[in-house]
Amino acid sequence: MESLTEFNLAEAVAVLTRTPATLNALLRGLPNIWVRSNEGKDTWSAFDILGHLIFGERTDWMPRVRIILDSGESRLFDPFDRFAQLKESQEKSLEQLLDDFTHLRIENLAALHALNLRQEDLSRRGRHPALGVVTLSELLATWAVHDLTHLHQLCRVMARQYCDAVGPWSTYLGVLQCTGHSAP
Amino acid sequence: MESLTEFNLAEAVAVLTRTPATLNALLRGLPNIWVRSNEGKDTWSAFDILGHLIFGERTDWMPRVRIILDSGESRLFDPFDRFAQLKESQEKSLEQLLDDFTHLRIENLAALHALNLRQEDLSRRGRHPALGVVTLSELLATWAVHDLTHLHQLCRVMARQYCDAVGPWSTYLGVLQCTGHSAP
Repeated sequence: MESLTEFNLAEAVAVLTRTPATLNALLRGLPNIWVRSNEGKDTWSAFDILGHLIFGERTDWMPRVRIILDSGESRLFDPFDRFAQLKESQEKSLEQLLDDFTHLRIENLAALHALNLRQEDLSRRGRHPALGVVTLSELLATWAVHDLTHLHQLCRVMARQYCDAVGPWSTYLGVLQCTGHSAP
Repeated sequence: MESLTEFNLAEAVAVLTRTPATLNALLRGLPNIWVRSNEGKDTWSAFDILGHLIFGERTDWMPRVRIILDSGESRLFDPFDRFAQLKESQEKSLEQLLDDFTHLRIENLAALHALNLRQEDLSRRGRHPALGVVTLSELLATWAVHDLTHLHQLCRVMARQYCDAVGPWSTYLGVLQCTGHSAP
């Protein structure tokens, strides 16, 4: 087993680069039953998750990178509204959301690249409103894992729609036992 | 919230059709650290998971569909070797595995389509060696959810490589709390 003992910017960017195409391949053209169903009251559908990812591209990741580089610990990050997409994306189609996410991610990765970060920049510090002191490398690693956590959640939300349809096989299917994502 | 109250073949096929392109988008060209790392001794990497999906295409899903249609409950399914890929795919590249999976899935979905299943066929029964009586619709639903469970697992295995790199954000990232997949 290999282990990532150290954050590596190119490896994080490799994940971030692939997420839009992954979501496109998984979701575009899929029947509404898969993309509009959730896990019950006050939970998210695939559509809602995509809206949340878009809102993160707009307001969270690169703005926080810039706060760390410009102000360090002296300026708290703005809190991230995890429910904003429930208001903002409801009028759009899934296809529009996929396109929006793709364009925003391309722009953000271009902006990140243009910063020309050096290894020593990765240890620069900022201040999270709830978590306290964090580093730039932790923020960038979280951006990549945030993609993975929502792809993981999305698989669970989709699978949940067939929890009865699979019959006795449900005991073999780990996705149906996942409790990693509490109600948002 | 909508709910899939009844299995629908076209909706299951819509998921099955998209999995190869999803895995291609997520994994092709990704640094080895993401695709070859696992979660510790006797756990699977993304590479191992892909090998397992290939083995299922070869030996599990369509062969079991045919056993149900040809023999019903009178013939037990052959047990599925969940570790076969650990021997079979080690000499191949990730790119070869992605190509193999894509081709096998296309062939299997073409074979499924050629069966021209009617609604009444979906309730036909077979016998699983451990689970007992199952129906054709349960088998087909499980095929789709099996894709989702392994995409879900794959996200978890990848994310696990950054469980330290994300620092204090780990508490916010559900994928790092998932216990849905026990050691295989």
